[in-house]
Amino acid sequence: MDMKKFAERSLARVRERSPLVHNITNFVVMNSSANILLALGASPVMAHCPAEIEEMTGIADALVLNIGTIEEAWLEAMLLAGRTANKKGIPVVLDPVGAGATSFRTDAVRRILDECRVSVLRGNASEVFSLAGSGVKTRGVDSTLAFSDAHVDAARAMAVELGCIIAISGPVDCITDGDRVFSVKNGHPLMTRVTGIGCGLSATVAAFCAAAGEGLCEAAASAFGFYGMCGDMAAKIAQKPASFEVAFIDSLYSAGEHEISNMLDVSGH
Amino acid sequence: MDMKKFAERSLARVRERSPLVHNITNFVVMNSSANILLALGASPVMAHCPAEIEEMTGIADALVLNIGTIEEAWLEAMLLAGRTANKKGIPVVLDPVGAGATSFRTDAVRRILDECRVSVLRGNASEVFSLAGSGVKTRGVDSTLAFSDAHVDAARAMAVELGCIIAISGPVDCITDGDRVFSVKNGHPLMTRVTGIGCGLSATVAAFCAAAGEGLCEAAASAFGFYGMCGDMAAKIAQKPASFEVAFIDSLYSAGEHEISNMLDVSGH
Amino acid sequence: MDMKKFAERSLARVRERSPLVHNITNFVVMNSSANILLALGASPVMAHCPAEIEEMTGIADALVLNIGTIEEAWLEAMLLAGRTANKKGIPVVLDPVGAGATSFRTDAVRRILDECRVSVLRGNASEVFSLAGSGVKTRGVDSTLAFSDAHVDAARAMAVELGCIIAISGPVDCITDGDRVFSVKNGHPLMTRVTGIGCGLSATVAAFCAAAGEGLCEAAASAFGFYGMCGDMAAKIAQKPASFEVAFIDSLYSAGEHEISNMLDVSGH
Repeated sequence: MDMKKFAERSLARVRERSPLVHNITNFVVMNSSANILLALGASPVMAHCPAEIEEMTGIADALVLNIGTIEEAWLEAMLLAGRTANKKGIPVVLDPVGAGATSFRTDAVRRILDECRVSVLRGNASEVFSLAGSGVKTRGVDSTLAFSDAHVDAARAMAVELGCIIAISGPVDCITDGDRVFSVKNGHPLMTRVTGIGCGLSATVAAFCAAAGEGLCEAAASAFGFYGMCGDMAAKIAQKPASFEVAFIDSLYSAGEHEISNMLDVSGH
Repeated sequence: MDMKKFAERSLARVRERSPLVHNITNFVVMNSSANILLALGASPVMAHCPAEIEEMTGIADALVLNIGTIEEAWLEAMLLAGRTANKKGIPVVLDPVGAGATSFRTDAVRRILDECRVSVLRGNASEVFSLAGSGVKTRGVDSTLAFSDAHVDAARAMAVELGCIIAISGPVDCITDGDRVFSVKNGHPLMTRVTGIGCGLSATVAAFCAAAGEGLCEAAASAFGFYGMCGDMAAKIAQKPASFEVAFIDSLYSAGEHEISNMLDVSGH
Repeated sequence: MDMKKFAERSLARVRERSPLVHNITNFVVMNSSANILLALGASPVMAHCPAEIEEMTGIADALVLNIGTIEEAWLEAMLLAGRTANKKGIPVVLDPVGAGATSFRTDAVRRILDECRVSVLRGNASEVFSLAGSGVKTRGVDSTLAFSDAHVDAARAMAVELGCIIAISGPVDCITDGDRVFSVKNGHPLMTRVTGIGCGLSATVAAFCAAAGEGLCEAAASAFGFYGMCGDMAAKIAQKPASFEVAFIDSLYSAGEHEISNMLDVSGH
């Protein structure tokens, strides 16, 4: 599989089909996630009221569940949306923001994983591994864990155990369905100095998965590659976080085949 | 009525009087709506707790109700605020975000229209016409309906039926009180690639209506014209969505008589 | 005390230690407060669900309570977080957004001040003095009160009465613990035309206080000075609000000893 070709095709499909991505996400990133999806060419919708969840998820092409500012009522909405998405057969991306930091968050993620079929679990290393029962302690919402080769094996084992794609952000990203493993070297440290960039990646994975239809692991990996590549592009334009964010979202809008062909750095099998 | 003169005067009044605009709006756009109002020279306040609604609406000069992330408790707050605004006689702008996408949203808007006197209903064509019982289906929050001359008649009929100004955003905007019809050609397609630009227009209409005092239909039309014109200005500076948003809000702050005189494109009677 | 040296050292510590700042804040500014903290080098977390408050505040280095879009359930969460922070001995910064505008807000702030030990009360003059029972009326969330020398005495009296640092934003900022009084001349009028800049200052004060460990009044004053100075820097780059906000957050990230040494304008004893 030529990942550059795959990424080009996925991006073209997102722009062509403009998948409707239903987000039940945290208050901090609602605006930035919407702007990231719009810049990509996708169509965002935010809705969390149980009274409309089934109808809203019912017209969506993908679902993002993000627990960044979770409370009980929102968890119920997420479970309902997850079940609706499963019935409809659309991809579900789960972002376990801050899992491991509090047992409430860890339990919320576990419950979603138990009650819904999640397509992709996307987080940083400490969030994801806090769910593996490996005793990792998350500090707030930022990763306290550097990613190593040893973690690839742990990620593969988790993917098999949970039956979903594990997608871990870090200096080198790792995306695996338990069988195949993709590594993504695109991305820039400034991406960690802007809030919502990680959450926006989860939304981007959802858009790419919706557009791909099949080959979810490749779709997730190409979303990571394209997203990180836009970070690389932005870092050439701006070296400070607020202007970097502007350049980054602009790049999501303008980057295309030419940049993918020259800069995308996704390897794997 | 010379709409350029009217728009100049309305803008000057907004900047002079700095009307306090009370917003009960969605989570996605609270930040951008506040920044849009501040850039215009108005004074935004966001408050949704029933315990303070009457006092807060009581000191406001205009009210914006926006159902973008509506839930039951917020609907009650909106109804209370709407009734308070009606008692006080200040303009109420209703933004039916995603009406037609779910029956919960459509019903929420209907209930607000039933229980409060709305001054201006501002949305895209599919949102607005979903309320006319014409069976239009909204996909998420983006319009699925191109605006045509035939729609002008439908908008006029709705304005008469609902007893409020119908203001529809699109490639050409249409603002009507059932009698008069204004068309606005200002505006740029990039405005649809930034979240909250539509919602920010509703807030801008509220600020202009508050400052105008009377002539609400002209005030709404001049708000549309000025807002779209700032989009036209921004598109000359930036061709990608995030830098476009920055240039757009900057233009709301800096544009004045000179730009209105040269660029405003509002016609009607 | 050389305030320039103190500010340099405080900033260096924030960047080195990256204090985790737990924010229970309003919907409007969650994104901007997070970005402001990240730009400074601190680590933000937003969490408001009582089920996780004790654990989350328990791992934090400082707490920010901001009532900008307060409702009853959030007030309970704030009280719980405040008590947890007090037990742990970490600084608590209270931002009384809109106090005085409605009795619900004024009462909420009073209750927090009664039930928790607040380290720093940070607001504009009308918000802060509305709590002194002086009958000041707040219009929305913007100050209606110019700051005068007479207010310095009132602020000192309040600091003694409430047993906390009173920190008032204005053309000249005033920070006092009742004994010492610091004045800050840094800052630019454009800071009042961007939403969340005041709230972001409260978060910045929390980060500086967390990093300082002791000398909270100096830490708060140096946070004000550094923050205002970044506003001064931004105003040299951008004269309109949206581009000003970008330049401002960029400055929080990049400003250092050189700028502090040349531009910081904090006096007092």
